[in-house]
Amino acid sequence: MVQADINLILNMNDHSFVVCAFNATLSKVDDFLASEAKGIKVVGAWSLKEKVSKLKKPWQIILLVKAGQAVDDFIKKLVPLLDTGDIIIDGGNSEYRDTTRQCRDLKAKGVLFVGSGVSGGEEGARYGPSLMPVGNKTIFQGIAAKVGTGEPCCDWVGDEAAGHFVKMVHNGIEYGDVLLICEAYHLMKDVLGMAQDTMAQAFEDWNKTELDSFLIEITADVLKFQDADGKHLPPKIRDSAGQKGMGKWTTISALEYGVPVTLIGEAVFARCLSSLKNERIQASKKLKGPQKFQFDGDKKSFLEDIWKIISYAQGFITTYFGWTLNYGGIALMWRGGYNIRSVFLGKIKDAFDQNPELQNLLLDNFKSAVENCQDFWWRAISTGVQAGIPMPCFTTALFFYDRYRHEMLPANLIQAQRDYFGAHTYELLAKPGQFIHTNRTGHGDSVSSSSYNT
Amino acid sequence: MVQADINLILNMNDHSFVVCAFNATLSKVDDFLASEAKGIKVVGAWSLKEKVSKLKKPWQIILLVKAGQAVDDFIKKLVPLLDTGDIIIDGGNSEYRDTTRQCRDLKAKGVLFVGSGVSGGEEGARYGPSLMPVGNKTIFQGIAAKVGTGEPCCDWVGDEAAGHFVKMVHNGIEYGDVLLICEAYHLMKDVLGMAQDTMAQAFEDWNKTELDSFLIEITADVLKFQDADGKHLPPKIRDSAGQKGMGKWTTISALEYGVPVTLIGEAVFARCLSSLKNERIQASKKLKGPQKFQFDGDKKSFLEDIWKIISYAQGFITTYFGWTLNYGGIALMWRGGYNIRSVFLGKIKDAFDQNPELQNLLLDNFKSAVENCQDFWWRAISTGVQAGIPMPCFTTALFFYDRYRHEMLPANLIQAQRDYFGAHTYELLAKPGQFIHTNRTGHGDSVSSSSYNT
Repeated sequence: MVQADINLILNMNDHSFVVCAFNATLSKVDDFLASEAKGIKVVGAWSLKEKVSKLKKPWQIILLVKAGQAVDDFIKKLVPLLDTGDIIIDGGNSEYRDTTRQCRDLKAKGVLFVGSGVSGGEEGARYGPSLMPVGNKTIFQGIAAKVGTGEPCCDWVGDEAAGHFVKMVHNGIEYGDVLLICEAYHLMKDVLGMAQDTMAQAFEDWNKTELDSFLIEITADVLKFQDADGKHLPPKIRDSAGQKGMGKWTTISALEYGVPVTLIGEAVFARCLSSLKNERIQASKKLKGPQKFQFDGDKKSFLEDIWKIISYAQGFITTYFGWTLNYGGIALMWRGGYNIRSVFLGKIKDAFDQNPELQNLLLDNFKSAVENCQDFWWRAISTGVQAGIPMPCFTTALFFYDRYRHEMLPANLIQAQRDYFGAHTYELLAKPGQFIHTNRTGHGDSVSSSSYNT
Repeated sequence: MVQADINLILNMNDHSFVVCAFNATLSKVDDFLASEAKGIKVVGAWSLKEKVSKLKKPWQIILLVKAGQAVDDFIKKLVPLLDTGDIIIDGGNSEYRDTTRQCRDLKAKGVLFVGSGVSGGEEGARYGPSLMPVGNKTIFQGIAAKVGTGEPCCDWVGDEAAGHFVKMVHNGIEYGDVLLICEAYHLMKDVLGMAQDTMAQAFEDWNKTELDSFLIEITADVLKFQDADGKHLPPKIRDSAGQKGMGKWTTISALEYGVPVTLIGEAVFARCLSSLKNERIQASKKLKGPQKFQFDGDKKSFLEDIWKIISYAQGFITTYFGWTLNYGGIALMWRGGYNIRSVFLGKIKDAFDQNPELQNLLLDNFKSAVENCQDFWWRAISTGVQAGIPMPCFTTALFFYDRYRHEMLPANLIQAQRDYFGAHTYELLAKPGQFIHTNRTGHGDSVSSSSYNT
């Protein structure tokens, strides 16, 4: 069992659930009972049969296994043992389409399948994760994190796969937040020449501002951390980012639904690019950067520019979530145990409470924040580009704003080109709803399909 | 029948194929025979049965129908009429996964299914398209476009769905090229204040340089074009770009295979964003841009900067194609009829001929081109950002270069964060292959899966 799983059991035990623990590797059950679970009410089981025999009806079985095949395999083993009304809860990071399939298959067998996103890592699991179930609230709200006046970070997100869809989007947003922090780190390190501890201090200071969030907080810890030989750890770590698919799935879903999540897309591709380590090593020997760059501006105000960009860019990312889910309750639910926990998410909740029809957060409570951003955003991008520092997320966030506020974008040219080479037709601003083909070949006005053969 | 289909039949007729034309809308067959097909060898059919009865064995049936359901439906109708050895050719823009499925289903029935990308639009279809079949070369090379010393723009690209996969990537590249041109157009219009005809002239001039390509050529035509009342057409066209899915599929495939096609991704999302026209109209009334920007640089050299960026950025896009397909023959095949036809593609062919193992084109014949690009790239981006002009593709192309040439990227921080909040482990530069978890909770070193229930 991984620590997060152990911690979730201990958390449930604190909330007076009697948990029966089972793991496919039987020795792990022994280890767990002999250590963390010693002297508490947790029961162990060494086979699925034994496990279910120890449960009160209706059975409530929580799976915390690797997304994908492992979930299918476990369910296959469980189904013959289950009766109508029993409940299987998938607390893993399953792809929401799999969850939809399982909900429907198990429903046919009279078994309730609950796909629930769980977030917060090891600490969250122990002291309060954020939970996004589509099942029985009471199972979850007890153990979920609490914010403000004890509101549980657990809400009803919808039917079937909604819980895993929400978790997917959350993780996608996290990919974006993480890369914004990386770009800041890169600028601080290579443009301002800051040392690890000085950077850590900056993140600590930022965490006392509106930027207060889990990721900013842990970034400070991570940068401060020194290994056994008293050296800072991050510079020693291989710069090839792993991923488990949630950011990729978010971007793919966004492409399928036509939602322009440019920042998350760039963040996912940034991880792909980072993993081409060997190619980059070769390229770094062959390809030159700009001639040595010397920053001669005011370091303090440049650092403030970076801080502002991170906090404003968060706004752009979360507007995506507004588009895809448009539900303030989810923002509130994310505030506590979640990895993207931030003061900021509270503001989103307020925005949706005030205006449930709100189309885009940029038009509401971020308006004033972003309107005066152009100057410092330009300073940072201009400096970074000159220094040869890649900032895809910093820039695409600004360009999102710049495009969103443009009544007229150059896409009219795309339509003219598409009509030219593919007879795809275009629409005149003056004649909405009429699609016109400009006839350059003397034919080509009809649009239909045909079939012929030689 | 759309004009492209009619033109392809006329093209085949020119190359002494006897074509039997059929369309589900029977009147279209009559119209075609009474007009374009009058007095040539083309035969008509008014039912599938009649059609096949008029063919020599083995039958070679080319479908040009809308991708998706329509292809399945047509094949379903045809199969009962076919014998072992007959050939169905799908010349539409089918999703390559559908093509794989159909290849396998039909193979079981003894029917050869050929998925072939066809590109070149109406003109290409008439006088020489670029064809990417996975079938019998001789069917295709006759009618394909010719380049240089008569090399046909038709090559054998592989098995099953390779033809449609190559076509998909080609269209993805086209999405990127198109958006680079749009960003140039936006800068020329709003930063340099150029008139339509002046811009058209610039594109015409560029088409006489290494930028010589189909899209640059038609952009000049499109910008020059005036409607009946003698006004330029493009400014009247609604700026909501349509798409038929090829760019989206390319980006989704890239995400699935972990290939960082950031520029194509941005180009696809740019079309999504452009289609949010009503939201943008509202936002344009509420959200301010930068205070009025006055360009005070040298217009001539800024225009040259833009030209350089387009031509260099093309290099970045096509490196993706190198990654996904890594086959110079495809570049050559694209040179003629294809929408992305360009002098440039010839250079790619040369690069792969010289070094079939070439990992990335940036390391070969684009090296010298991009190395000295930083200065003008910075001037353009810095100016554009200051003027509030979105340039996601201009910037992400530069950042691709900047990341590719960085031996060390900030992804080490991502790995440290992921290990902190998810115990995902990290790798030390000094100890490749060893994955370490830094234990901050006193536990959490094991990585496995578990299951328990309340």
